Amino acid sequence: MLRDSEKQAPLPAIGMRAVRTRTIKEEDIVDFAEVSGDHNPLHLDHHYAAQTPFGGRIVHGFLTASIISAVLGMELPGPGSIYLGQTLKFLAPVRIGDTVTVSVEVIALREEKRIVTLRTDVVNQDGTMVLTGEATVKC
Amino acid sequence: MLRDSEKQAPLPAIGMRAVRTRTIKEEDIVDFAEVSGDHNPLHLDHHYAAQTPFGGRIVHGFLTASIISAVLGMELPGPGSIYLGQTLKFLAPVRIGDTVTVSVEVIALREEKRIVTLRTDVVNQDGTMVLTGEATVKC
Repeated sequence: MLRDSEKQAPLPAIGMRAVRTRTIKEEDIVDFAEVSGDHNPLHLDHHYAAQTPFGGRIVHGFLTASIISAVLGMELPGPGSIYLGQTLKFLAPVRIGDTVTVSVEVIALREEKRIVTLRTDVVNQDGTMVLTGEATVKC
Repeated sequence: MLRDSEKQAPLPAIGMRAVRTRTIKEEDIVDFAEVSGDHNPLHLDHHYAAQTPFGGRIVHGFLTASIISAVLGMELPGPGSIYLGQTLKFLAPVRIGDTVTVSVEVIALREEKRIVTLRTDVVNQDGTMVLTGEATVKC
């Protein structure tokens, strides 16, 4: 007789990895401001942003982070997984025109609970880490 | 003579709080899928989602979380603050038509480094906590 656990899809293995690269455009920031309701002038107003320590407009941190969520939900572990948690450390600004590479990698498994922990890193085109953290997902 | 620290805006006080309420519409999910690249059918495909343990389409967790970011960036601490980090625990699904209330509250200060920690909670119209976590912001 099959136990329930034997009918489920296999868990991803430690070390499995998925990657997505994307260039952030000006209209992405405008669209993200609309859908999130975050109209902070640091993201939208060139004149305001130029006076800040960033020296210019930067991408919403949660726009960059939402790409992590997209990779988790669509690629690894992929559809059917349930997002339990995420930690995010914003390390450096992302600017309009930057190309970011999001990588997620399985770093721990709790097999009996089918809970997977993934390291979630984002680097820019210069190799600078702009965002890091961990995701917890139930498969 | 003024020291640099005396020229800065006062830090928010422990216990200060900001709240935003929003009803999530179908088009918000479609827009968020576009801007994030997260086309997971759990969010977009009624027939697929009906077969999952959720029994229907749910809102992207990061769409809900992005409202936290909006409150932090626009209200408390507001423009000029720098987002350092966020933890997120997704506790219950948000569905199309749900009205979520995001509250952020200052729970700790590191005055010398001007780093503020805020509890960030989201409840739905039934009072169910759907998302909780903490934000770390430099003012």
